[in-house]
Order: sequence, then C-alpha cells, then structure tokens
Amino acid sequence: MASGSKLWGGRFVGDTDPIMEKFNASIAYDKRMWDADIRGSKAYAKALEKAKLVTAEEKDYILHGMDQIHDEWAKGVFEVKPGDEDIHTANERRLKELIGEPAGKLHTGRSRNDQVVTDMRLWLRDAISILKGNALQLITTMVERAAVEIDVLFPGYTHMQRAQPIRWSHWILSHAVALSRDVEQLQEINRRVNVLPLGSGAIAGTPFNIDREMLRQELAFDDISINSMDATGQRDFIAEFLFWASLCLTHLSKMAEDLMLYSTKEFSFLTLSDAYSTGSSLMPQKKNADSLELIRSKAGRVFGRCAGFLMTLKGLPSTYNKDLQEDKEAMFDCFDTVHAVLQVTTGVVSTLKVRDINPSVMEAALSPDMLATDLAYYLVRKGVPFRDAHGISGKAVFLAESKSIPLNQLTVEDLRTASPLFSSDVSAVWDYSSSVEQYSAPGGTAKSSVAAQVEHMRTWLKKQVQ
Amino acid sequence: MASGSKLWGGRFVGDTDPIMEKFNASIAYDKRMWDADIRGSKAYAKALEKAKLVTAEEKDYILHGMDQIHDEWAKGVFEVKPGDEDIHTANERRLKELIGEPAGKLHTGRSRNDQVVTDMRLWLRDAISILKGNALQLITTMVERAAVEIDVLFPGYTHMQRAQPIRWSHWILSHAVALSRDVEQLQEINRRVNVLPLGSGAIAGTPFNIDREMLRQELAFDDISINSMDATGQRDFIAEFLFWASLCLTHLSKMAEDLMLYSTKEFSFLTLSDAYSTGSSLMPQKKNADSLELIRSKAGRVFGRCAGFLMTLKGLPSTYNKDLQEDKEAMFDCFDTVHAVLQVTTGVVSTLKVRDINPSVMEAALSPDMLATDLAYYLVRKGVPFRDAHGISGKAVFLAESKSIPLNQLTVEDLRTASPLFSSDVSAVWDYSSSVEQYSAPGGTAKSSVAAQVEHMRTWLKKQVQ
Amino acid sequence: MASGSKLWGGRFVGDTDPIMEKFNASIAYDKRMWDADIRGSKAYAKALEKAKLVTAEEKDYILHGMDQIHDEWAKGVFEVKPGDEDIHTANERRLKELIGEPAGKLHTGRSRNDQVVTDMRLWLRDAISILKGNALQLITTMVERAAVEIDVLFPGYTHMQRAQPIRWSHWILSHAVALSRDVEQLQEINRRVNVLPLGSGAIAGTPFNIDREMLRQELAFDDISINSMDATGQRDFIAEFLFWASLCLTHLSKMAEDLMLYSTKEFSFLTLSDAYSTGSSLMPQKKNADSLELIRSKAGRVFGRCAGFLMTLKGLPSTYNKDLQEDKEAMFDCFDTVHAVLQVTTGVVSTLKVRDINPSVMEAALSPDMLATDLAYYLVRKGVPFRDAHGISGKAVFLAESKSIPLNQLTVEDLRTASPLFSSDVSAVWDYSSSVEQYSAPGGTAKSSVAAQVEHMRTWLKKQVQ
Amino acid sequence: MASGSKLWGGRFVGDTDPIMEKFNASIAYDKRMWDADIRGSKAYAKALEKAKLVTAEEKDYILHGMDQIHDEWAKGVFEVKPGDEDIHTANERRLKELIGEPAGKLHTGRSRNDQVVTDMRLWLRDAISILKGNALQLITTMVERAAVEIDVLFPGYTHMQRAQPIRWSHWILSHAVALSRDVEQLQEINRRVNVLPLGSGAIAGTPFNIDREMLRQELAFDDISINSMDATGQRDFIAEFLFWASLCLTHLSKMAEDLMLYSTKEFSFLTLSDAYSTGSSLMPQKKNADSLELIRSKAGRVFGRCAGFLMTLKGLPSTYNKDLQEDKEAMFDCFDTVHAVLQVTTGVVSTLKVRDINPSVMEAALSPDMLATDLAYYLVRKGVPFRDAHGISGKAVFLAESKSIPLNQLTVEDLRTASPLFSSDVSAVWDYSSSVEQYSAPGGTAKSSVAAQVEHMRTWLKKQVQ
Repeated sequence: MASGSKLWGGRFVGDTDPIMEKFNASIAYDKRMWDADIRGSKAYAKALEKAKLVTAEEKDYILHGMDQIHDEWAKGVFEVKPGDEDIHTANERRLKELIGEPAGKLHTGRSRNDQVVTDMRLWLRDAISILKGNALQLITTMVERAAVEIDVLFPGYTHMQRAQPIRWSHWILSHAVALSRDVEQLQEINRRVNVLPLGSGAIAGTPFNIDREMLRQELAFDDISINSMDATGQRDFIAEFLFWASLCLTHLSKMAEDLMLYSTKEFSFLTLSDAYSTGSSLMPQKKNADSLELIRSKAGRVFGRCAGFLMTLKGLPSTYNKDLQEDKEAMFDCFDTVHAVLQVTTGVVSTLKVRDINPSVMEAALSPDMLATDLAYYLVRKGVPFRDAHGISGKAVFLAESKSIPLNQLTVEDLRTASPLFSSDVSAVWDYSSSVEQYSAPGGTAKSSVAAQVEHMRTWLKKQVQ
Repeated sequence: MASGSKLWGGRFVGDTDPIMEKFNASIAYDKRMWDADIRGSKAYAKALEKAKLVTAEEKDYILHGMDQIHDEWAKGVFEVKPGDEDIHTANERRLKELIGEPAGKLHTGRSRNDQVVTDMRLWLRDAISILKGNALQLITTMVERAAVEIDVLFPGYTHMQRAQPIRWSHWILSHAVALSRDVEQLQEINRRVNVLPLGSGAIAGTPFNIDREMLRQELAFDDISINSMDATGQRDFIAEFLFWASLCLTHLSKMAEDLMLYSTKEFSFLTLSDAYSTGSSLMPQKKNADSLELIRSKAGRVFGRCAGFLMTLKGLPSTYNKDLQEDKEAMFDCFDTVHAVLQVTTGVVSTLKVRDINPSVMEAALSPDMLATDLAYYLVRKGVPFRDAHGISGKAVFLAESKSIPLNQLTVEDLRTASPLFSSDVSAVWDYSSSVEQYSAPGGTAKSSVAAQVEHMRTWLKKQVQ
Repeated sequence: MASGSKLWGGRFVGDTDPIMEKFNASIAYDKRMWDADIRGSKAYAKALEKAKLVTAEEKDYILHGMDQIHDEWAKGVFEVKPGDEDIHTANERRLKELIGEPAGKLHTGRSRNDQVVTDMRLWLRDAISILKGNALQLITTMVERAAVEIDVLFPGYTHMQRAQPIRWSHWILSHAVALSRDVEQLQEINRRVNVLPLGSGAIAGTPFNIDREMLRQELAFDDISINSMDATGQRDFIAEFLFWASLCLTHLSKMAEDLMLYSTKEFSFLTLSDAYSTGSSLMPQKKNADSLELIRSKAGRVFGRCAGFLMTLKGLPSTYNKDLQEDKEAMFDCFDTVHAVLQVTTGVVSTLKVRDINPSVMEAALSPDMLATDLAYYLVRKGVPFRDAHGISGKAVFLAESKSIPLNQLTVEDLRTASPLFSSDVSAVWDYSSSVEQYSAPGGTAKSSVAAQVEHMRTWLKKQVQ
Repeated sequence: MASGSKLWGGRFVGDTDPIMEKFNASIAYDKRMWDADIRGSKAYAKALEKAKLVTAEEKDYILHGMDQIHDEWAKGVFEVKPGDEDIHTANERRLKELIGEPAGKLHTGRSRNDQVVTDMRLWLRDAISILKGNALQLITTMVERAAVEIDVLFPGYTHMQRAQPIRWSHWILSHAVALSRDVEQLQEINRRVNVLPLGSGAIAGTPFNIDREMLRQELAFDDISINSMDATGQRDFIAEFLFWASLCLTHLSKMAEDLMLYSTKEFSFLTLSDAYSTGSSLMPQKKNADSLELIRSKAGRVFGRCAGFLMTLKGLPSTYNKDLQEDKEAMFDCFDTVHAVLQVTTGVVSTLKVRDINPSVMEAALSPDMLATDLAYYLVRKGVPFRDAHGISGKAVFLAESKSIPLNQLTVEDLRTASPLFSSDVSAVWDYSSSVEQYSAPGGTAKSSVAAQVEHMRTWLKKQVQ
C-alpha cells in the first residue's frame, strides 16, 4: 500500500515492503489497550478545550465520537483496517470517519511518544489491581487452610531430606508470607506506574498551555512525570513489573515443587483434585500433576520476558527508540500468565487433600531420627555445650544405624556409650508433639506461634482490602 | 466440559476448572504443526501395518483420512472443537469422525511424549531450511554489494572513535562473515534436530515390533534416537535453536547499530530507503530508521525466549514433564522473528544508499589524524622500535592539536621536534589510498585482500546451495 | 583431610574428595562478611545469657573472644585454616582456640541456616547505605551541573535522529530523574532486607526462650521474620537487589551510550577528561572513552548475575538447599560493580567538557528542519487542524530538500505552495531560543521548567540525607 | 600514578582516577593467560623476523626473554607491577626490563585487539581439551556402571509419577547420551575457536608482510580469520562456549535432580557416598546431598554468565569496544565451574550405591498399577483398538482403587466388568521382567536394547579418544 495514507504522509514518496509493514505494526497486540487509548484521548480533548485549541463544540464531537468507538470495541465490531498500524492510529482514523475535521485537532501538541506510554500506564494500573486481587484470594485461601489444619504434623525438609517435625500449617504459611511480600512490592511498583506522562510530547514537552494537572486529575494519576525526555523514553515500570512477575512465579514454582514431591507415590502426603490433574495418553493408571508442572514452568517463561526486555533496553541511547515497542507483548504475556497461575494455584491449594487425616500419612512419615536435635538439646539442658551434644547425638545416630534400629529403640545403656549423662528421662524426647511445641518463639512451629502467624496474616489481609 | 471426552477419559470422575483447561491446552499455538503431525501419523500407520497391528485396509483408511484432514487444514476449514486440547488430539478426533474405529488403533504403542517431539523435529527441520535460505540471500546481497562498492573508503571505527581508513566493503564483509558462521552453526544444529524419536513411547520404548528404521526412512530423518528416556524428555535441539537465533540476531543488532550511526545527521554516510524508514506523528521533518531499531531490538526478544526456556528446563527431573510445553511458543516466536528480521535486513541492505558517491561523504570524513599509525610506521621503516615510534607519533598528534591544525599540516620542522628522523618524504604518508593498500595480508583492507574475501564468500555461498 | 574436624563430625566415617571440598567451601568469598558474622554472634551470645544457656561469665568470654577475632580480621592477620569451610566455621573455630569450652555453647539453638542469612542481611544493609551515598553524590553532581549550564541548547534526539531543540540541562536531568527512582527503589528493598531472621534455626524456629525482640534491637533490625521456614529458605532480598543493580546500571548504560555518541568526532559535543579516557596500543591519535564503554558493559554483567541467581532459585523446593550458596558471590559482585560504576560515572560527569561554549558545538548543530514542528504549530495557531498542519509542514520540508536549501530559506512564496496561510510573520518561527521557551509546562524544556526541575531535585536530595 | 608510564603514554597529560584505574585494569584475572600470551608473542617475533622487522639476533633475544618470563610465571615469582594493566602490558614491560630495546619492536604491526583475542583462543582451546577429557571420563563411568547393573529394574517416572518399569541402566544411559551430545557440540565449537586472528591489527589488518600462514602453523591453528574487523571485534566463540556450558550443566542439573529424589528417605533407592555428602550444623542425623545441590545450582550460575555476556554484546557497534573486556571473567568462571562439576559428578556417580541389591529397594518400588499399559496391550493383542483398550484398563485401575487393592489382585470376574475379553491368561501380565522385555526396539528398555546402547556408547567413546 502507498505510504500516503499514513500519519506522516506528507513527505514520503516511496512504498514500504509488506514484510516491513507487518514487522513495524503493533495493532495485532496493542489493540488490547483500546479502552486506555480512548480514555487518554478524551482527557486530552478536554485539556485542548481548556487551552482553547478546540472549541467546546469540537470537544463534544470528539468525546461523543470516542464513546462511539468505545462501543464498537466493546461490542467487538470495531474494524481494524490495513493502514491501522497501531491502536492510536486506528482510533484516530475511526474518529475522523465519524466526526470529520475536528478529529484532526486531537493530536495537537501530543506525540505518539507520550500517548503510548500513557495508554500503557493506564492499562497496567488496571492489570495490577486485578493481580493484587488474585494474589490476595490465594493468600486468604492459604491462611484459612492453615488455620483449619493447624494440628497436622509432618516432616520438615531441608536439602530435600527429613529435618525436623513441623506443622503442615507452618509450611503453608511459609509460602503465604512470601506472597504477601509480592503484594507489597506490587504496590510499590504501582506507585511508579501511576504517574502521568501525557503532556511530554515527543521529547521537549508540551507547548500551548496544556494543563497537565487537569490531565492528571481526569485520568486519576497520583503524580505528574518530572522530565519529558525521561517520561517518553523510559520503560522502568515495565521492567519492574516483569521482574515482579518473575519473582512472584518463582515463589509459586517453589511451592509447586514441594507439592509435586508431596504428591509422588513415594511421599503420598497429598492427593490433588482431579480438576487439576491430567492423565496419560498411553498409561491408564497415570494421574499427573500437570497443573503443578505448568505453575513451575511459568517462572521461566515470565523471566524470559524480563530478560529479553532488559536486554532490549540495555545500551539504547535515551528517549524514544522503536526498540521500546517490545514492551507491550512482554507486559501482556506476563499479566496473562501471572493472572492464570494465581487462579490455578488457588484452585489447586483449595482442593488438594491431605491423605487420610488422623493419623495422616504425613504424621506416619515422622521418624525418630528427626529428633536427633532434640536428643542433643536434652544434653544441652544438662549443661553439655551444644557442639559436644551435637557430636554425642551424632554418635547415637550412628549407633542406631549400625544396629539397624530406630534411634528411639536405643537403650539407655546404648546411649551411655556416647555420654554418661543419658538417663531414663530421655524417653520423653521421643514425642513429636512436644518436640514441635518447643519452637514457641515468633516464627516457630509451636501451635501458639503458628496461630499467631495466622492472626498476623489475617490482619495484614484486612489492611490490603481497605 | 466433562473430562469424559478426553483421551484419558477412563478413570477421571471430576471436572476441570475452565481456567485450568485453558492453561493446559496448547491447541491455540501447536496447531501450526498440523502438517508435521499428519506426516508423523501416516508413517506410524505404515509401521503399524508392518507390525500387523492394523490391516492393510485399516492402514489405507487411516492414510486416506489423514489426507482429508490435511486438505481441511490446507483450506483453512478444519474446525477445532472444545475438547481438542492439542493438535494431536484434534487430528485424531477428526480421524475418528471420518473413518471410525480404525482411528482408535493409530495410537497403539505410541505416546504423546514421542509423538509431540517427532512433530516438533519435523516442523523445525523445515523451519531451519527456510532460515538458511533467508540467511544465504542476505549474505549474497552483502557480498555482491561489497564487490561493487569496493573502491569506497571511509573511517574505520574502534570504540566508536575514528581509527584507520578502511574500505566500506571491508565493513560489509565483516558482517557477512559473521552470518556465514551462523549458517554453519545452524547446519550443525540441524544434524541434531534431524533424529527420529518416534518409537520411544512414553518412556520405556516401543513394544510390538514397530520398525523404527522404516519410520526413519519414511520421515527422512538422518538418525534414530539412542535412548527412549532421553528421546522423549530432552529439548536440547530447541535450546540450541533458541540460542542460535539469539547469536544470529546479536550479529544483526551489531550491524544495525553501525548503520544507525552512519545514518545520523552527524555521520550522514548513508541514506536509508523510505521503504525502511518511518516518520513521526509529531515532527514533520523526521525520518526514523525504524527498521534498524526493530532489528536491533529483536536480539533481546529472542534471547529472552532462550533464557526463559533454559530456566524452565533447569532443575527439572528427567523424562517428560509438562513444563516442556513451553518449548513450542518459544520455537515459533524465534522462527517468526528471525525469518522477518533476515528478510527486512536484506531489504535494508539492498536499498540503502551511500551518500554522494565520488567523493562520498564517507571519504570526506577521513582525517589526517587517522594516519597517525602510518606516521609511526614511517619511523618503524627507518628503524625506530614501534613502541618509540608510537610515542613520537603521539607527540606529533599532541603538537597538531595544540596548534589547532590537522596532523598533515605540521611542517617537517615541527615533526623534527618529536624525532630527527622525519624528513620531507613524510608527505607520502598523507594518502588514504596508499594507507589502506598496506593491509594486503589475508583479512586486511587492501583492495586485493577485500577482493579475495569476496571470492572466498562467493565460493562458500556456492557450496551452501549445492 | 579427614572429615572428623568438621562441625558435623560425629557421624561421618569417610573422607571427602579434595575437589568436592573446594567445590563445597565458601570461605574464599564469604570471609568478606567477617564483621557481620561477629556482630551476629555477639548479639546471639547475649540472647543465650538471657535464656540462661550461658552464664554471664561465659558470655563475657565469648564477647571478648569475638572482639579479639575482630581485631585479627581488621588487622589482616586472621589465619584461615584448612578446615574452615566458611566464615562461620572459621570464626567459631578461632573462638574455641581463644576461649575454649564456652565457644561450644555459642551455636546452641542456632543453625547455619539462620546464621548465614543474618550475616548477609547485616552486610547488605551496610552495602545499600554505601550505594545510596554514591548514587546521591552522582545525582547531586548532575543536578548542579544542570543548574550551571541551563542556557546551553542542543539537538534533542529521538530514534538517534535530530528531533527538536532542547536544553542540555534537560538532558542531564532526564538521567538524574531516572537515578532518583533507583534510590527510592533501593530504599524499599532495604526495608525488606532489614528484617531479623536469627532465631529461626534450621527450619522449625528456636527453642530455649531465645528472645528474638532483644536480638532485633541489638542488631538494629526494623522487623522480625514472620515464619522460620521462609526466613531461612528465601533469598528474595538478594534477587531484588540484583535486579535493582541491573536496572540502575541499565540507566547508566543509557547515559553512557548518549555520551559516547556526543563524544564521537562526528558529534563533537563533548570532551571527556583524559582521566576517563585511554589510548590505543597501536594508534597514537586515539582517545577512547573506555570509561563509558565499561559503564555500558556492566549492565550486562550485573544482569547476568541476576539471571543466574533467579535460574538457580527457580524450581527449588522450599527451605534451605545448598544451591542458595550462589547468593553471596552474586551479591558481592553486584555491589562491587555498582559501587565502582557510580563513582566512575560521577567522575566522568563532573569532568567532561561541553566543547567551545558560547556558541557551543552543540548549538551549532541545531538546524532549521528541527523547527518543522514549530512550522506546523504556526499553522495550528492560525486554526489549521494539527494533522493538516503536520502534512503541510512535511511538504515544506520536502520542498526545501528538493531545493537543497535549509527549511528556513524557503521564501514565503515557496511556503504558500503548501498553504496560503503562511505570511511574513513566519520568520519568527526560526528562532531556537523562542522554540524551546514554548515548552513551559511541567517537565518541558523551557528555562523556567528546567529550573523547576532543578529545584525539585534539590528538594528531593535534601530529603534523602535527612 | 602518572599516565606517562602507560603504553599510549605519548599524548596524555592528565592522570586517571584510582577507581577508574582499577575499573579499567584486567590483570587481576587475565594473568591466567600468561602462557598463551607468551606463546603468541614468540610466534609473532618469528613472523617479525621473517618480515625483516627484527633481526635474527633481536628475535633470539625476544624468544629467550619470553622463556625467562615463562619461567617466572611457572615458578610463581613473576611480579605484577602497578602499571601492568593487563597480561600483555605486564609481559612486554618485563621483556623490556630483561632485554631492553628489542622489546619495543615486538608490538610492530600488532594491536592489543588481535593480541588479546589470540591469547583467548589459545587458552580456550586448551580448556576445551580438558573439559572434553572430563566429560569422557564421566560418560565412561556411566556407561560401565550401566553395563554392570543392567539387571536392576526400577520405576521409570514421567511427571515425577511412576510410569512404567524400566532398567536402572536405561536411566543411566539416558544421561550419558545427553552428555555425548555435549561432547560433539564442544568439538564443533572448538573448530570455531581454533582460528588464528593474529595479523588483524586493530581493525584494518596487518601491513609489513607479516606471514599469517606461518603464524597459523606456529600456533597450530586450523584456520586463519577471514576479515580483520570481524576477527578483532567478535566474541562469538566465547558466547557459544558459555551457552555450551549452560546446556551441559542443565543436563547435569537434571541428573542431580533425579538423584536427589532417589536419595530422599521416601524413595531410598540410593545411598550417596559420605565423600559427597555433608552434615548439618544443627541436626546430628542429617546427611545432605550437598554435592548434588551444588551441581544443580551451577547451571544457573553458568547461564547467568552467558546471559550477562550476550546482553553486553547486544547492540554494540562493530569492531573492538572496551565492553568486550567482560569476556574473560565469564570464560574463566565457566571453565572452572564446568571443570569442577564434571569431576564431582564423576565422583558421585562412581561411588553412589544402589540400596540393598537383590532385591533392591528400587525393585520393591515397582507396583502393579505401573503395568496398566500392559493390561491395555493385553487387549490390543486380542484385537481391541488401543484407544478402547486404554479406556478399559483405566476402568480396571479405578475399580482396584475403589476396592483398595492392587491392580493385580482384581479377579478375572472383576476385570470382565470392564471387558469380556479378559481371561485367566491375564495373570501373565503381572510380571515386571517380561514387561520390560517387550521394549526391544532400538532405544528401549529390554535387556538386549540396553546392552546395545552400552555397546553404541563404548564405540562412540573409543572414537573420541582416537
């Protein structure tokens, strides 16, 4: 097609190559911002009127035309035409069809450089709000589940090896706490997203007495950008969002990995709902935790977007360069992915079942060797320095392994070969319930401490929705 | 929808959540492999007949049905239905509609684990062939342009600072040589792509006397995978391809960066064709090298796919895990991106103009200080150790700067303050043409050497298309 | 060496392989945290006394011993011995040598899992404070330079092409504003760094009435970690810091890229101080902006650390896994790199010279075509819709190009071929100083607006150091 | 220090800032290439003699001096001095101290640009040879272990869920096969490493009749670089090596993840040697698979280096820029890491024990539901289309679960409720040994097929060391 129909049509005499046309166009994906683009243009029309660059009547034509375009998009009948290389061109082209000449005044003093970044900020602000809601729903699910199942004990693992008995709820909360940091960080990012760039022009700012404060209020931004070159050329808020998505999904990948382990035949702690499992096309008995694997995988996808965008940014000179066009697909994909992952995770967490509660398979998995630290503490309480007590307890473990018996089956005599301080009261060590109750300091796995964590999170959740 | 209609329908009693359904499905993108999937299934039907698992008649039904499905896809009339979670399910579902019961025999001894990776390898093999063609076309364009413009001199830059006079063709060839390495590496990767995994089942291999050698021949693979667990669980060929794409686009990003510099007003060496430039929505005089900026940006995008996929792979246990589903979008996106970038770059390179040839702006940009090395070499030829000559030449440069005159305007007397060895024959140094002709060793910028590089590349190109 | 001398010596009977020993050890780099480790242990000794696990006398021995160890490190005489696999082992081993048995009590109820992350948080808190100081110094330099050179105009670029006349100070401030966001983000991260994990044990928390609130006060943390599993197993604060470093250096890479362009012979806007340039071993005339290239390169290095660490985290199960040992080298390297880059950038910015002020080369680079937007605005002010005005101005640009004359050399008659609205008052358009003064809205390039930005930043800076 | 003592001392009048000095210097790490640098300089001295730029006597002085320097480095007595910013400067400075004036001739026609990349290629060529040896040793260990333990059966997993019975050796070989691809790829990279850049100068090539073919032979390179700009400005061979390291360690990370699972208490398939385990500072019973965790973690580290370096390369203009200095630390770190990981993995694999062989815990973990596919195949053999057979078998699995009995405890009557084709011969299905023997096609888990894989790998290994 001839370039004559493009916005900058005045001076080009050649044609573009069709591959270049397609390579250059962003309408295929940036049309998702149709609503933000319309909101931005309506606010700008009001500012133009205030600056006497359009009349009240022209402004009304523009607003009315934009409302019609809104309707067309909302109803799915907006027709993208060949020359519409991006959402801004498409909406303005349509406006001209609908209202004629006043449409040509809308872009006065505005540049696509400030228009596009205004649209993105409006879009992302809404997206962040949705993600925050998804995250809070997941955290709420986790906290309430932790409250209900507070009495279930199971092996705590470090290095994927059984470490010490802990509460199942303690595990749940460990992941909920990580997600609460994600929510807090998301809100910090949102403060940097929610800044008005409109009125920065292409690079130098806006002439013509455009009232940026009025624009800010119209579009409900918290602040106004400080420097027009920075405002049009930076995409830090996108980079921050992409990294946020990466860290958040790394948290969920970690939780998914735990749940996958706990769902293996060998651990058998949990049963995933059929709704979040799939079968095998070959093996009839298989029930695969596909949901968990997908959750785990998405951290990679999202971080790839972050890495790719950072690499695109790196080394660019300042102000707007077309390279920045990579920002939108990354933003959309990360939003969609985190949006889906948070909801699926909520589904998984709310429907998985702890197997055979009371006693659960989890509790059955506790073993006396997991109390070796308690055995050392027994000695510490009798005055043995911990380092020595640790060594003595280690010898007891070794002795039990040599005899192929559980640690708690060693006789007092056996134990005395390691230290003369052992006496019959050592039998009190072999109780998982009392073991966990030792950890009553803040953050520990004692019932009181876990209950306090539940309360802490409930209070925090309430604050978030205020 | 009820899960009853899925391939593994026999045992599930629950439903899946709609978000999970969508999260799990890959049909939206893996339908691109419809042709590869059909080819794989047709070959497999023949192997089943040979193994007497289907009759000749059943095989013919399957082949015929698959041909019909091929037609539907080719004509764009294949209808994807709600239960079609991936291309394999869709094609098999359709086959059953078309031919009934024999369709149920097609998957005998096959798993989606070996089916999907067979499809990917068939698809990628074709994609690689296309990219190789695109790259060769670009290299040819560059080499032939270098041959034509061999007499144009311009400043060679290091550290973005003028370094020594070189031939413009020398610059062109430096990028062509890098791309020729990309082609060679792509062919190496292709050898690892072109290996048959079909007949590996889900994990353990194939029972039933499936003749894998026959499958290999039918599908024109070079080799058969060695180990069924590796065959179904590895995606190294994807990772290699993604990295290849990243390095290739890093090369084009580097060339684009050079061309952008050369196209600035300040350098003014080149004029980009209007077909590869765009204007500004605000500034009427702007002609932006959008094509070059897009080329530069895509290295980031593609590397992001590579980084994301590697991160998804990292730490996975062996064999098939659903996480691997991230492989396809990454593969498609990198192919599409490199495919477009190579073609656009070919367009850019074949249409850009060296400004005002004979003398060009390029040659006008050569300055006497770029011959400071030659001044040192003048002394070297008179027996001065290079280190000393370098120092003396540096002093001459400093002297000229102090006097605010070009280096070649220093008198012999001026030069003698730096070294008594300068005499009137030093005037011969100030000739750009003789300067470049010194570099006649292989790889240098002398005309003979650049011409030899052109010949080398022409010979190499001929070999590639044989 | 025999494993008997290790902390967990009680049960191992085999030896380790020397490569594994080295692979496993972290002392080579984590010794940097010697001071943090000592501070943490001293606080812990006090908590042990409060919990009656050591006597007042034993506590004093420990504190005194730790002070001696502090001296040894401070004087550079601390001797790392073969069995010292990490800083924690080294300090405790030395303590035992110095004070004997009470040393064995120090680790009571503590685990390396909570000890190491306490050390890291103490260390990073100090590091962040240093980086904040470096960043503020750089920003101050930039803001004050902007204040002084506010009258220098030069070409503003978008897409690396001349766009509109702007103030040099406007450019400086665009980078300063980006850095001020970095400082704000760093402080947000610091809030998440400055949280006490000590008292979380290995996984389950701490028994023995260790007073975590007292530990918090002793070590001046703002908060106490909420959940012991999360506290010992998460490294989000490291990931956040690494990404912060990446984004911060991406900003400096962007500024360096601009400065490199401006320092080329072709632009010649700036002269870098010799202190930040280097020469060539071959070419005597070369003066390379090595400092800028190094600044530009480091964004990649630092992001590599971020990418690597995220990949290491991805897919790990929860709680402590040895994989986390990758955290420290990444943290140290990113600190060192950003620390150096910020200081070098301050040096570069404070010493570079705008060439030939009044008139500067910068102003000489302004050209009439950069006022094409102003030409359109001239028409807008006469009531022409901007879209039409943009087209008319484009025609004028084309006409001037056809005639090979500057845009401002077109006669009124020439201009009237594009629009009858042009009259002799159009000559007022061709003034760069009045052009920039149009952009007086907040964030624009008018003198008043740039001065307001300077004031804004000065106020912000004052707040940071309070 | 004054800049006067630097190589380019002739023209600089200012001093550098000490932080910039340190920031700029690479001697701290590039001194590792001392031997390569000396080899390159000796070859170059010979070429200078041939070109009559040094006399035979001068050449001998240089060679002799270089040998002395070699000795000093080899003995660890070479003294790096303050002005030695890199290994090239250090060696040349020392040469001058040792032999005086002829040292000043060594750099004639050479640039650090071609010198440094020559050194890197020499160094990396040796490093690749070492890594290839390490990898072959590991593969040999794996293949021979597979040969010995071919009769051990255990559960094959997909999606971390029990899938089908397979041979333990089949698992071992799946990882060995992946590593063999790494070796092949490494050799392809080596072909691109082993190319002589010396004689490319800074950018334009070499004057003075330097015989590059002679240099190639002296230094045993396979080829000569084609274009001097490409030769000095590209680091593709480094990028390729870094990615190779990433993919190789991703393979080992995958194997480590499997081994960690198999070493958990819950799986209990394997016991790691004490030499590759460590204990806990808190919990006396812990035996952590630290070696495996470290192996798993390093894939991230190494990929971070790759990502960082690619990002540094991205968008650079062509030829040498100081940014390239990031190449060396990345190269060294990746070599060191892969070198250690391959050796540690060899140690782990050669010393781990399959628990309680004959019957092993592995075989005890096989369960009848893993034969559900075989149950479907039973029906396929009776003519049931696989899709239907899969569904019927799935019903049988569901029935057994409902009855809480193993699948093989279903009576024929039970099975007939799913399909009337079941009869008493179904009992033959429940034999793990016959199950695995079905998979006798190439790549399968039947004994003959696994033995063939062992032979294939042995043959391949023999070829590698020829």
